[in-house]
Amino acid sequence: MSKAKEFEQRLERTEHQLGLLQKISRCMVRDMRLQDALNRVVTLVVEFMDCDSCLLYVVDGNQLVLRATNSSHPAAVGEVKLALSEGLTGWVAREKRLLSISREAYRDPRFKFFSDLPEDTYEAFLSAPVISRRGVEGVINVQHRNPHAHTGMEMELLTTVGEQIGCLLMLSRAEAKSTSEMPDLVLSSGVPRAPGS
Amino acid sequence: MSKAKEFEQRLERTEHQLGLLQKISRCMVRDMRLQDALNRVVTLVVEFMDCDSCLLYVVDGNQLVLRATNSSHPAAVGEVKLALSEGLTGWVAREKRLLSISREAYRDPRFKFFSDLPEDTYEAFLSAPVISRRGVEGVINVQHRNPHAHTGMEMELLTTVGEQIGCLLMLSRAEAKSTSEMPDLVLSSGVPRAPGS
Repeated sequence: MSKAKEFEQRLERTEHQLGLLQKISRCMVRDMRLQDALNRVVTLVVEFMDCDSCLLYVVDGNQLVLRATNSSHPAAVGEVKLALSEGLTGWVAREKRLLSISREAYRDPRFKFFSDLPEDTYEAFLSAPVISRRGVEGVINVQHRNPHAHTGMEMELLTTVGEQIGCLLMLSRAEAKSTSEMPDLVLSSGVPRAPGS
Repeated sequence: MSKAKEFEQRLERTEHQLGLLQKISRCMVRDMRLQDALNRVVTLVVEFMDCDSCLLYVVDGNQLVLRATNSSHPAAVGEVKLALSEGLTGWVAREKRLLSISREAYRDPRFKFFSDLPEDTYEAFLSAPVISRRGVEGVINVQHRNPHAHTGMEMELLTTVGEQIGCLLMLSRAEAKSTSEMPDLVLSSGVPRAPGS
C-alpha cells in the first residue's frame, strides 16, 4: 500500500472516531430520554467497531443490569442481571479496568454463561468500565463473533465512551432529582431500583 | 506538497483534536475541583487552537462572569462581568449559536469594550455557547491577535468543547447538591452566586 493511501485510511478512521465522540457529546446536551441516548450511543459504537454485539450494563444496587444493546435481543434489556462478582463484566466493574480478549473469551475462567445470550459463543471481547465522578456506573461490552485483535484506537474509544456514558447517567440522575421524577426518568426500562442506590 | 504529506498533516491534526476531546472526557470523570477542570480545558483549547486568548464566561443570574482564561490576566477572573444583553459574548449566549469573525472583530456593532482586557484589540474572534440540557450555561471565546480564518475543524471543536463544559458545570452542581456544599464547590473563584441561579 502506498504511503498516501495508508495515511488516507488512518485519517478516515480517526475522523470517524472524532465524529462519533462529537455525536455522543450532542446526546449529552440534548433534551432526550436517557434510554434513547443510551440506545444511540450503542448504535454509534456498533457502527464504528463493526462488532457483532454491544451490551451496556448499568449498576443497580449490587447488580449489573442490561440497559441497552444492539437490536438482536431487545427483550433481554432490563432482564439480564449479573452480580458484581460474576463474569468478565463483573470483573471490569470491580477492577475499573479495560479488558481485551482477542479470541476464545468464553474459555476465560471469569466468564459466565447465560443460556439466553448468543454472545456466549463469541470469540473476541472488549469491555470498558462506565465511570463517573461517583465511581463505577456500569460496563460496556463489545463482542466479535470471530477472533479480533483490538486496536489501541478501539480501546481508547471504548474507554472514552465509558466515561461519556457515566456522565450521561449522572446528568440524567441530577435532572431527575431536580424535577422530582427520579425513578421513571432514570430507569425508564422498568428495572426496579434498590433504595438509596 | 505531496498527497502523502497532506494526508499526514491532516491526520496529525485530527489525532490532536481527538486527543483533546479524550483529555476533556477524563476531566469529567476525575475527582477534581471545577475550577481546575475549567482551567485545564482552557489550556487544552489554547494549545490546540494556537490562539492568543481563550476566555470562558459562565452564566450567573442574568450576567456572564469570566470564570477561566489563559494566564495573561488571571486577576480578571471573577471580576469581568457582562450582561446577557452585551457584546458579542452576550449575543452568542442569547442566540446559542457559534460566531466566527476572522478580522476586525472590534468593529462589529455588537462588540463591547473592556478597558482592562487586551483582547479588545484582537482581530479574530471565535465564540461558542456553553450548553447543557438545562440550556445556556456560558460562552467560550477564542481570539487571535491577527486575522485568522477559522477552519471547520476549529468551529466543530469549540462547539463540542462548549457542550462538554456545559456537562462539567451541570455535573459539578449535581455533585455539590448531593454533598450539600454547593456554593463553595461550584463557584470556588469566589464569585457571589445569585439565589436560585
